[in-house]
Amino acid sequence: MARPRSDEARRKALEATRDLIVENGVTSLTIEDVAARSGVAKTTIYRHWPERASLIVDAVNAMFEHLRTPDTGTLRGDLEVFFGAVMRTDLSGNVGQIMPSIIEAAGRDPEMAYLLDRIGGERERVCRTIIERALERGEIREAVAGLDLDALVGVTVGPIAFQKIVRRRKLTPEYVEACLDVVVTGLTRPSGH
Amino acid sequence: MARPRSDEARRKALEATRDLIVENGVTSLTIEDVAARSGVAKTTIYRHWPERASLIVDAVNAMFEHLRTPDTGTLRGDLEVFFGAVMRTDLSGNVGQIMPSIIEAAGRDPEMAYLLDRIGGERERVCRTIIERALERGEIREAVAGLDLDALVGVTVGPIAFQKIVRRRKLTPEYVEACLDVVVTGLTRPSGH
Repeated sequence: MARPRSDEARRKALEATRDLIVENGVTSLTIEDVAARSGVAKTTIYRHWPERASLIVDAVNAMFEHLRTPDTGTLRGDLEVFFGAVMRTDLSGNVGQIMPSIIEAAGRDPEMAYLLDRIGGERERVCRTIIERALERGEIREAVAGLDLDALVGVTVGPIAFQKIVRRRKLTPEYVEACLDVVVTGLTRPSGH
Repeated sequence: MARPRSDEARRKALEATRDLIVENGVTSLTIEDVAARSGVAKTTIYRHWPERASLIVDAVNAMFEHLRTPDTGTLRGDLEVFFGAVMRTDLSGNVGQIMPSIIEAAGRDPEMAYLLDRIGGERERVCRTIIERALERGEIREAVAGLDLDALVGVTVGPIAFQKIVRRRKLTPEYVEACLDVVVTGLTRPSGH
């Protein structure tokens, strides 16, 4: 009997956290607010998430759960599905402010720098898996295959994140197609240099 | 006699603006602060910069003036020089907070959204010129050459900006080399698809 009640409390606390983040952003969130909003006792919340940061990471990740890892059999196919899903993700309102506010706060606050690493790492996981599979299939050209995986992930999602987060512009099908074309060609074609 | 005195006031106001941005960030800057710090009259400052945003744009641009546009004759050579200069740019302390704080504020404040567009556009200008020259030389492969120039600029600087601004990590020579290799190959090689 204890397990289901605990799961229920967990779900309620995550939903309240998500709502509070959407309303007020991530930097000012407190466990007290989450307890008040969810009706879950503070002690219960602390039992699930000993630190505020892990609660925020779980709540933010739950918002992007729909970004599943595609497995179409080719790098281009996988990135097409993934970039398409990112393009359709609605970042209007405070959801679109989550990454900018964490990035800004990370320069001032070590807890936020830690959060940025955790959430950023989670957000990159889909792309990382896609590239690992392409490496296993031998799709990545030799000169690139030996490079640091973090760099390959950065080169692949960088143009997409740049457009959304740095330029704050919408991802258009034309922009996504340009990213796909340049990145897939750059990663998989022999360079000939 | 009026011109040199006016130039002097302009230079002093820009220096004071730069110092205040480095100390306190960009969002809270006021013309009053600039006048107090520089000893230049508020009316003189308003004559040069009718709006706060243009003063900030000029001051931020002056900080990145050393990022000149290389002209080596090849896309790879130009990007190598440019990325190298970006890598050596010291973004420690508040200088590194300029873009994150404008990006964050742009989601809440139309003036900051306007600033982001202006400063971002200036910061992209070097890369834009590099790509335009590569297009003129016929270096860019046909399937890509017809794409929107903004998209080509985004694909080229996106991975660099992602590493610095979104991941908040240092640009290493290895990371820059991976960007160079993938982007130049992706832009200039025939795709063969």
